[in-house]
Amino acid sequence: MSINSFGHLLRLSTWGESHGPAIGGMVDGCPPGIELAEEWIQRFLDLRRPGTGRNVSPRQEPDRVRILSGIFEGRTTGTPIALVIDNVDARPADYPKDAPYRPGHADQAYDLKYGFRDPRGGGRASARETAVRVAAGAIARLVIPEVRIEARVVEIGGERDEARWEALLDEARSAGDSLGAIVECVAEGVPPGWGAPLYAKLDAELASACMGINAVKGVEIGEGFGAARLRGSENADGMRPGGRFDSNHSGGVSGGISTGQPVVVRVAFKPTSSIRIAVPSVNAADEPVEASTRGRHDPCVGIRGAPVVEAMVALVLADHKLLHRGQCG
Amino acid sequence: MSINSFGHLLRLSTWGESHGPAIGGMVDGCPPGIELAEEWIQRFLDLRRPGTGRNVSPRQEPDRVRILSGIFEGRTTGTPIALVIDNVDARPADYPKDAPYRPGHADQAYDLKYGFRDPRGGGRASARETAVRVAAGAIARLVIPEVRIEARVVEIGGERDEARWEALLDEARSAGDSLGAIVECVAEGVPPGWGAPLYAKLDAELASACMGINAVKGVEIGEGFGAARLRGSENADGMRPGGRFDSNHSGGVSGGISTGQPVVVRVAFKPTSSIRIAVPSVNAADEPVEASTRGRHDPCVGIRGAPVVEAMVALVLADHKLLHRGQCG
Amino acid sequence: MSINSFGHLLRLSTWGESHGPAIGGMVDGCPPGIELAEEWIQRFLDLRRPGTGRNVSPRQEPDRVRILSGIFEGRTTGTPIALVIDNVDARPADYPKDAPYRPGHADQAYDLKYGFRDPRGGGRASARETAVRVAAGAIARLVIPEVRIEARVVEIGGERDEARWEALLDEARSAGDSLGAIVECVAEGVPPGWGAPLYAKLDAELASACMGINAVKGVEIGEGFGAARLRGSENADGMRPGGRFDSNHSGGVSGGISTGQPVVVRVAFKPTSSIRIAVPSVNAADEPVEASTRGRHDPCVGIRGAPVVEAMVALVLADHKLLHRGQCG
Amino acid sequence: MSINSFGHLLRLSTWGESHGPAIGGMVDGCPPGIELAEEWIQRFLDLRRPGTGRNVSPRQEPDRVRILSGIFEGRTTGTPIALVIDNVDARPADYPKDAPYRPGHADQAYDLKYGFRDPRGGGRASARETAVRVAAGAIARLVIPEVRIEARVVEIGGERDEARWEALLDEARSAGDSLGAIVECVAEGVPPGWGAPLYAKLDAELASACMGINAVKGVEIGEGFGAARLRGSENADGMRPGGRFDSNHSGGVSGGISTGQPVVVRVAFKPTSSIRIAVPSVNAADEPVEASTRGRHDPCVGIRGAPVVEAMVALVLADHKLLHRGQCG
Repeated sequence: MSINSFGHLLRLSTWGESHGPAIGGMVDGCPPGIELAEEWIQRFLDLRRPGTGRNVSPRQEPDRVRILSGIFEGRTTGTPIALVIDNVDARPADYPKDAPYRPGHADQAYDLKYGFRDPRGGGRASARETAVRVAAGAIARLVIPEVRIEARVVEIGGERDEARWEALLDEARSAGDSLGAIVECVAEGVPPGWGAPLYAKLDAELASACMGINAVKGVEIGEGFGAARLRGSENADGMRPGGRFDSNHSGGVSGGISTGQPVVVRVAFKPTSSIRIAVPSVNAADEPVEASTRGRHDPCVGIRGAPVVEAMVALVLADHKLLHRGQCG
Repeated sequence: MSINSFGHLLRLSTWGESHGPAIGGMVDGCPPGIELAEEWIQRFLDLRRPGTGRNVSPRQEPDRVRILSGIFEGRTTGTPIALVIDNVDARPADYPKDAPYRPGHADQAYDLKYGFRDPRGGGRASARETAVRVAAGAIARLVIPEVRIEARVVEIGGERDEARWEALLDEARSAGDSLGAIVECVAEGVPPGWGAPLYAKLDAELASACMGINAVKGVEIGEGFGAARLRGSENADGMRPGGRFDSNHSGGVSGGISTGQPVVVRVAFKPTSSIRIAVPSVNAADEPVEASTRGRHDPCVGIRGAPVVEAMVALVLADHKLLHRGQCG
Repeated sequence: MSINSFGHLLRLSTWGESHGPAIGGMVDGCPPGIELAEEWIQRFLDLRRPGTGRNVSPRQEPDRVRILSGIFEGRTTGTPIALVIDNVDARPADYPKDAPYRPGHADQAYDLKYGFRDPRGGGRASARETAVRVAAGAIARLVIPEVRIEARVVEIGGERDEARWEALLDEARSAGDSLGAIVECVAEGVPPGWGAPLYAKLDAELASACMGINAVKGVEIGEGFGAARLRGSENADGMRPGGRFDSNHSGGVSGGISTGQPVVVRVAFKPTSSIRIAVPSVNAADEPVEASTRGRHDPCVGIRGAPVVEAMVALVLADHKLLHRGQCG
Repeated sequence: MSINSFGHLLRLSTWGESHGPAIGGMVDGCPPGIELAEEWIQRFLDLRRPGTGRNVSPRQEPDRVRILSGIFEGRTTGTPIALVIDNVDARPADYPKDAPYRPGHADQAYDLKYGFRDPRGGGRASARETAVRVAAGAIARLVIPEVRIEARVVEIGGERDEARWEALLDEARSAGDSLGAIVECVAEGVPPGWGAPLYAKLDAELASACMGINAVKGVEIGEGFGAARLRGSENADGMRPGGRFDSNHSGGVSGGISTGQPVVVRVAFKPTSSIRIAVPSVNAADEPVEASTRGRHDPCVGIRGAPVVEAMVALVLADHKLLHRGQCG
């Protein structure tokens, strides 16, 4: 089975490969009557876009989104919103058939699962697909105007001091190596009551949404792993009349349901697997080869991960707003 | 909406409150012809059961499971397997109506979502529901006999040295406080190819499954948050002919698909929210009150979390075995 | 895969075999705060119950329903409502292992699908399971108090004149034969706007719900097959200001969405397959044998089908009320 | 909620409006390694295409399908297959804002559900969407090469004699009126064991699939409504060794599972709602107006329905092949 859809009532389905003619998707279940223009989506795509700095991939993609359905006279109609982004800088011929499996990528896993794969630039497993997530997330934001979502990189290569990041990245790039990063996303304005016991808890949905982003290896809510090192008396969020809390160790979710406090998610991105430094590998014939990335590369995928985290958080929250309204009116 | 089901082809649905007459669930989609007896399930329930040590809750529940359907002459028939566990030690009258919302529990969140709730012992949000997960996990194991799953506590209260745990727990209990824990689960024998791009990646499913366990605040796959602090050259899992790898930083999942290496998941449990130490709170009338747990309490819920993590991992893997077979034959 | 769940937001999952210890199910997603007592459900079960007339099966089942979860102080909490009905008159020993496959039943099909089956009284495929549907339907009715649902038999053995039915049934029973029936269900008070383009159209959902009832072979909405014999000018439902229509050939559904007119569904039940008249068959060893039902039998299953049709229609409508509210507020 | 997806493991999601830039969809879950070219799909689209006869709509649409993903070197990769069909003959400006609601169409229902709608040529509710179903059905056929599916019109305007159809259609067209039709679809080669108790019975899935086609008002399996008029002894399909049957009243499905006999589905199409004869109606301002279709129209939508029925049957059967393999291996 291949599951390329996400969400319950607000549902994103995506398609497309890195070096095919286009990538795209559809957002189903969007409430009707919401003002939506391509320009709104484009703003978010531009933030995610490669080719805009020395620390991100040099592929030149304008990432222009087109809306092909679901809009009439500038407003959503409640029918599926189809999104298409053409692959302008696709270079399908670049791929040598006897290329090494790139450690840390899905190359070998896809071949073992499906028997073969589209090998061009990672095919379906390419992070290029996240452009569609970002586009869908922009729509999701309009479903939850009461919520403000902002994700930012809080750590690169283990360093929390922003002032040192540029030097770290320069050094890693020069060495042909790469760095991991941690992204923190805060959603303010989430009312209490969103979420669903027991198998679609708001935090479980956020975990699934974020762990499914390329290169992510860990997800925390609120205090996260740090909570495992606190005592109960330290971790308790004292409650006050009027829905106020003394602290937010819980990250805005209790029992799988939003508390009204900011929802806080932290996401760990591994260092880019594509590095110039050679790593032992095999090819499709299972022969030993060395894998190393030629040309420029993106020394820290986490940097471009922040808008994707925002988009996934927006999709989860918008979906749960509709779910809550469906059951509880 | 209320989503009390988990899984795609192998699907667990659960019901029941902590102090109602029983808890239970059904496992749908189990392959036919598998030998299954209540005793097999009981073995796993006994490992999770409360009342078997001073560091776990004193509630006396025999947790005897009964199978009410789906079995004929000792084998699964392919129809739903209904599981029921009676609540023997339920004490519904214990609950005072003007009780404080317990910080860290779902009390207030449920009231804000649903307008009211079953307040007896946490109602639906009680960790008691995890008994059904453990029972279902025992069935899932039979679907994947090729896989060995083992979870264990690797850290309590920030301490990794097992020899020091008992003293830490004694001290916390005496102080009326509690401790968090980290559980690590390893699944060996998972063949390459399980998992599904892009929104049911094996690691995303594991994250959802584990984050949905009571008291869990973080989930990592393989190197997890540690990967964010490694360089790409350190984090790379060199590949060798014959499906061997030099390391397993990836935790057995690449691109959302199993690689054939052990699948490694780490789960952070917060310290028990029910502590004797008083915490500021409010009651349903939004009046300021103090919350503190009377009587004995469980100083570290993470200890009982290990069998639950195993169960959820088993459910995810069994589901994806069937999904993979459905698409790829 | 085995799919024993029905519905999107209001979701029924059922389990149980005809001669196991019990049958049951759970209703998930019910809105909170609805008054619900076992007696309400029992009223509907009593209408469906066997053993209450000479034209229905003689099995003596009190069909007492118990609610095991999801209710607190007489009201739904929004968590799953578990329903259990004990099998009191189960006679598992009655089943001879070399029994013929009963033509028209699922006996052989289950064996060919699953490799073996629970053969006792039809096992999972028994119409006994419909008791759980009726129980769930009683809950669904409470979700849509604005709607009145009533199903009735309109034809038995091809005869529409009710006065002749009893004689027809007596004659068929005496001859060891059986008769088919047509049940018509009308739901009044459905507001316009329920339903969902394009793959969960209200009429498509009703068709699925009703075709899935045991012994059903056909479903019509509104004019149904008769519409195929009308001209467009005859079949047109003229529209008038104020939401009035000149006719209701459409059966209350247009483009998959309710129009505000009564929703009309007609369901064809085949004649009971269990008859005393011998029919050529085979047994599990594929040897030729004759199949015939011993003892009393139910000469027209359609009679007991009416409450089941009502229940399924109620489940579909309640589900779509919640779905509509989720998307459109 | 808006549900524009169909299927469990083989899943079609569609988008697009009649007079938007394009319509399309994606097929998810297709097994990998299947040879697939646009030409194969085009063959089926050409059979459904309007503008190819005097008895079908005159809109000139080449209906050229493009595959944008999921294929590499002519074979499916197991990832989503995106399909796009441009709307070449779209005439969005044709629509007058104060147009009458067309009785029998979704015009008013959409407005009442969503508050407003895309009114151009029926928008999302247009039968144009069925082109995507036909394209997806062509893919589904490749998943079940063992099955031959053929649908044909068996009745027009109540007349079963093909020789009289042309005259009937000419007469109806001249009179500005329209005729209904019945389409029968037979799937040969379906092995026993496909289908799923109890809420995804093969016949229930077929009923949902076909009732969801535009203008369909009734679905029968096998003997269908006729079975309600037969006696049990007449309707019984005697069984013989070797999987042979004396008859096929059941239409190849027993207990929701395929028996190995041909699967037979009959579908009732109402007469085209767009007729030249005036019908009383209202407009969006709820003012009384007359509705009548200008220009040429399609006097019998059922004729173009046959390829759509085939496609939906193919999708259901392919899905259940994968589902069966998932659970039963």
